[in-house]
Amino acid sequence: MEFKISKELISEVKELIQEKNDHKLELVLNDIHHADIAEILDELDFDDATYIFKVLDSDKTAEILLELEDDLRENILSRLSPKEIAEELDELETNDAADIIAELSQEIKAEVISELQDVEHAKDIVDLLRYKEDTAGGIMHKELVKVNENWNVLTCVKEMRIQAENISRVHSIYVVDDEDRLKGRLSLKDLLTTTSTKTAISDVYIRKLNYVNVDAEDVEVARIMQKYDLEAIPVVDELGRLVGRITIDDIVDVIKEEADQDYQLAAGISQDVEADDSIMELTKARLPWLVLALLGGFITVRVLGLFEGAMLEHGNLFFFTPLIAAMAGNVGVQSSAIIVQGLANDTLSGSLFNRLIKEVSLSLLNGVILASILFIGSHFLLNVEIMIGLIVTIALISVIVIASLIGTFIPLLLDKFGIDPALATGPFITTSNDICGILIYFSIAKLILGF
Amino acid sequence: MEFKISKELISEVKELIQEKNDHKLELVLNDIHHADIAEILDELDFDDATYIFKVLDSDKTAEILLELEDDLRENILSRLSPKEIAEELDELETNDAADIIAELSQEIKAEVISELQDVEHAKDIVDLLRYKEDTAGGIMHKELVKVNENWNVLTCVKEMRIQAENISRVHSIYVVDDEDRLKGRLSLKDLLTTTSTKTAISDVYIRKLNYVNVDAEDVEVARIMQKYDLEAIPVVDELGRLVGRITIDDIVDVIKEEADQDYQLAAGISQDVEADDSIMELTKARLPWLVLALLGGFITVRVLGLFEGAMLEHGNLFFFTPLIAAMAGNVGVQSSAIIVQGLANDTLSGSLFNRLIKEVSLSLLNGVILASILFIGSHFLLNVEIMIGLIVTIALISVIVIASLIGTFIPLLLDKFGIDPALATGPFITTSNDICGILIYFSIAKLILGF
Repeated sequence: MEFKISKELISEVKELIQEKNDHKLELVLNDIHHADIAEILDELDFDDATYIFKVLDSDKTAEILLELEDDLRENILSRLSPKEIAEELDELETNDAADIIAELSQEIKAEVISELQDVEHAKDIVDLLRYKEDTAGGIMHKELVKVNENWNVLTCVKEMRIQAENISRVHSIYVVDDEDRLKGRLSLKDLLTTTSTKTAISDVYIRKLNYVNVDAEDVEVARIMQKYDLEAIPVVDELGRLVGRITIDDIVDVIKEEADQDYQLAAGISQDVEADDSIMELTKARLPWLVLALLGGFITVRVLGLFEGAMLEHGNLFFFTPLIAAMAGNVGVQSSAIIVQGLANDTLSGSLFNRLIKEVSLSLLNGVILASILFIGSHFLLNVEIMIGLIVTIALISVIVIASLIGTFIPLLLDKFGIDPALATGPFITTSNDICGILIYFSIAKLILGF
Repeated sequence: MEFKISKELISEVKELIQEKNDHKLELVLNDIHHADIAEILDELDFDDATYIFKVLDSDKTAEILLELEDDLRENILSRLSPKEIAEELDELETNDAADIIAELSQEIKAEVISELQDVEHAKDIVDLLRYKEDTAGGIMHKELVKVNENWNVLTCVKEMRIQAENISRVHSIYVVDDEDRLKGRLSLKDLLTTTSTKTAISDVYIRKLNYVNVDAEDVEVARIMQKYDLEAIPVVDELGRLVGRITIDDIVDVIKEEADQDYQLAAGISQDVEADDSIMELTKARLPWLVLALLGGFITVRVLGLFEGAMLEHGNLFFFTPLIAAMAGNVGVQSSAIIVQGLANDTLSGSLFNRLIKEVSLSLLNGVILASILFIGSHFLLNVEIMIGLIVTIALISVIVIASLIGTFIPLLLDKFGIDPALATGPFITTSNDICGILIYFSIAKLILGF
């Protein structure tokens, strides 16, 4: 069951904007979820979108703001005063508000912060701005329920009620000491079944719990939360003080982004772009890899030039270069993709040596099967002399083995040096394997035919 | 903060197994999270792993079972009697139990089901077995809290307490009519703040809520839950009856799997495999794509053969074939990856025609930049005659434009016909673009040089 934007709805909205019929506009849009309104705004021009923004209440527009495409959000924010922006942010959770502030220009940022009404909220937001985007601090929020270990159950329940007011999903109650250091967690069930309201919290709380440091990488937090099946995890600073909380919906975004990024890198796209981004942005993400591939191509031209001597007598050797290069590229990408995923999911076990041995066995098996097809095919389909067929066949096996070793080794090497191994997949592997493949092929040919 | 398996722990565990010191073994392992014990078992041989399995309590081993690598789970299950397996399943949530039963052979399946102790639980599990794996029915569980719209608040609270007993996370209370049809949901807050316990539920429940049909695709459910930021969503059958519930942690797995699968397809791996799978499994996933690429390679050999006439006079044309083929492949993969992600994230807007126009502009821009580098490079780095340089340059621009159109068009076409567009990326696109690229290149050369 999902709302679908109809053309009729869009034209109705446009008409109402034209008529400046704010009342009717509010009536129509109030029934629609903010995520869907964001989609409607994406279909309108900037003026109309901003108009709607000013008509609706800030508790609704704040949520819409989060769902908008980046460029539309930027454009709408540029048409709002710092005070209006602050009104939106007052409605948002701390981490969402901090994310939006981070997108603003330096001078507006300060003005917006000074216009925030809720002082506690403002402090929390400013605090969050300190952390790097891809760390636990960068994705956590300050909304959480915490109680002091020295309180009794009665005080605790009272305090919890006050704190929980502003929190949509409680998940867990954290226990801290006087210095705000995280000591453990409290189960709501235990709290409610404790017979005496005078029981000290320190007698009932659970001392064992998962937490992460504020500097932990976001993908690491995602891995821990997935592994232990957690819906929320507390975040502590260097002194062990409870500074925030990360919930599973934040982690869903991290997982999605990380996977999208790996996929794009494998396809030779180096920045987070979408099909609807501008041609300039898409070019910036795509061109660098193509230039790399082109320079690699220059090398293949030179390598082939080295074997020019074979052209007169064995010209048809050159017919097989794209085939050899393609096989090297494909095998290399397969091998590196498996390693990249293994590293990402932390499922690689055993030593490097064993892994390379396994890859050699695997590629030998695949290589022999493919070489047999090639040998038969070259004879019956391509009508090549037996000798050339034999050379291509031997070359194919060698190229497949080497390509798979390169594909396995390079991402592992990058990972060792703290570089994202996904960089290895895509154009980088295909280009280097093209070069190696062609070099190996013609070297074998030269060895056998002696040109 | 995460537990890390140490070599010392592994050897301690192995020793305790050897000594058959069950008591100490239990003591050591009881402090460790089940997800971590699963990792320890992965490091042991099957006999030792099974031994631990029999020592620990079934509430712990049941959870461990879920976390094990597929082959180890299969192996351990094969060493347990149907009664022992049923004991494990009695401890699990319905959907987890159903997933494990689905992996069993047909004859054991029936025996295990007949050994299940909790009849209601068994009924629910059998019910779940009916649904296809990648649908809402396949990922939902039966654990949920539901109340009848005709009850009053008092009855409702009493019933809820009983139902919530077996559920780790309540999230929402669903309201149904006498026919079990989903009518709405109840907020726990509203329920507790209603002044009279005699108030009818029908007076307080929220009639608007998101739900999905039991046949909905799992990726669709994931999209809806992400869009509306839901932690749980109810599932209804064809008659609108409430049959289950999907929670966000089930969806995290769906998102992860879907992203992994797209990534693997882009890399030319057609089944869900991991680095630690057997060589046979890896070959099954990798070889088909390589065979496809090889057959594509045959075509490139034939295509080049068509232009054999050029070899004597313009042999160095052949030096550029890998370069042209590589550029065609890289551009094609970039274009198709952007479309595949756009389709997956539902962010593609505008008509097919506009999209192709945009792609042509983008690729012309990239093509001209790359061709300029190539033209200069071919002259100064590769020492090729101006004429050949010119031909290669013109060919590169044409090839880039055509390759990007193919890369854009094919995934859109596949999607239209209900085929996973991710199939288009990887070897399929690179191979077809190799062939087209080479054909275009030599056709242009022939046109200009007239061989």
